[in-house]
Amino acid sequence: MARFKLIVEYDGTPFCGWQRQADRLSVQQALEEAILRFSGETVTTQAAGRTDAGVHALGQVAHFDLGKDWDPFRVREALNYHLRPHPVVVIACEAVGPDFEARFSAKARHYEYRILNRRAPAAIERNQVWHVPVHLDAESMHAAAQLILGRHDFTTFRSAECQAKSPIRTLDVLDVSSDGEVVAITASARSFLHHQVRSMVGSLKLVGEGKWSPADFRAALDAADRARCGAMAPASGLYLTGVDY
Amino acid sequence: MARFKLIVEYDGTPFCGWQRQADRLSVQQALEEAILRFSGETVTTQAAGRTDAGVHALGQVAHFDLGKDWDPFRVREALNYHLRPHPVVVIACEAVGPDFEARFSAKARHYEYRILNRRAPAAIERNQVWHVPVHLDAESMHAAAQLILGRHDFTTFRSAECQAKSPIRTLDVLDVSSDGEVVAITASARSFLHHQVRSMVGSLKLVGEGKWSPADFRAALDAADRARCGAMAPASGLYLTGVDY
Repeated sequence: MARFKLIVEYDGTPFCGWQRQADRLSVQQALEEAILRFSGETVTTQAAGRTDAGVHALGQVAHFDLGKDWDPFRVREALNYHLRPHPVVVIACEAVGPDFEARFSAKARHYEYRILNRRAPAAIERNQVWHVPVHLDAESMHAAAQLILGRHDFTTFRSAECQAKSPIRTLDVLDVSSDGEVVAITASARSFLHHQVRSMVGSLKLVGEGKWSPADFRAALDAADRARCGAMAPASGLYLTGVDY
Repeated sequence: MARFKLIVEYDGTPFCGWQRQADRLSVQQALEEAILRFSGETVTTQAAGRTDAGVHALGQVAHFDLGKDWDPFRVREALNYHLRPHPVVVIACEAVGPDFEARFSAKARHYEYRILNRRAPAAIERNQVWHVPVHLDAESMHAAAQLILGRHDFTTFRSAECQAKSPIRTLDVLDVSSDGEVVAITASARSFLHHQVRSMVGSLKLVGEGKWSPADFRAALDAADRARCGAMAPASGLYLTGVDY
């Protein structure tokens, strides 16, 4: 038996998210069907991050097992051939030992959230950013973001449907920077709660607009109350950019 | 009567190009229908560059006339509202004098061509780049590009259907640079022949692969023979980035 680690890029727009669902196409299903087509084997893939509908990935990591020892280069080429109708691409493939688990071996997950901050909507990147027409002060957003780094109860920034046992997480990076019309937010942690990045971004937007002070943002965290979260940012601006092992 | 200058961004993927056609949707038609919907007036818009099917714009310029003096800010907002089903956005709108002509007043046109240069195809940008899987040497492409700057007969790099009276053009900028997996080619001139940028890029790719030397690229220009042009680069990687007046 051989285990393969994949780095996967996808446009989340046409998918119901990473995870298989009975009635809508998922990235997982597209990938597993491509694996079946080249290898003849029906496998279950496991991913580092179960991205939601519309969320993109530049560096999702997944693993799966095959009965035969394929050359990883040929696996990548065959998968990209069979994935072709879908906006899913295998960037890299390597053989890994049986202890490697894409989800459970991950030491850090990195996300980026992209806001197009201008009056006119997005044309070319319309499914790839969040369009915010009012001016955002990226410096005060960044100042606010620094106030919630570290280990906290992130209940405020957690989906009501989140299935994690604990709302405690350690947030290592939450940076906000602006470059021309784009405000980018990068977030890194060992793991995130469901909707955590989009919830933090939605609240940071209120800081950027001047509706909240950085202290209000920190107070929302401290309240540990979902009702204190700003409106969640849409899926279209979110990218899983990489996973560390 | 009032004349308006627009700066327009669009994703060229779903369009037959800028120019109206009887049977397929053009950017021009989408824009003129939006103008009709907000103003009640049927107008003809004129653009600086008549981009082909699949070619994008970050800074296309167009003008049109209305019987009424609208506030340019309101024109932009109304157009973006009515354009909404289409990936076409008005970035800026200003009132201009009757002498301004988007096409004929233009002093320089700027294009960028984007190549995704990696083994794996594009996922997120699949309609926004040209995927070239073999490694390209951007430095030798740039060196070759410098050999054709200036005023020349560009017959080699001109579509057989080009309607310009003369094949003589003055190429001011043709820069090739690489940044990570992207090789970007920028081109500036007062005007370009039909398919000129995509033809030059297709031949520069041969230089990047090592199939042509920079001298071969220059010799192709000097031959003034369309048969000497490399296979033309696809529309998906080309952007009209701006127009100077």
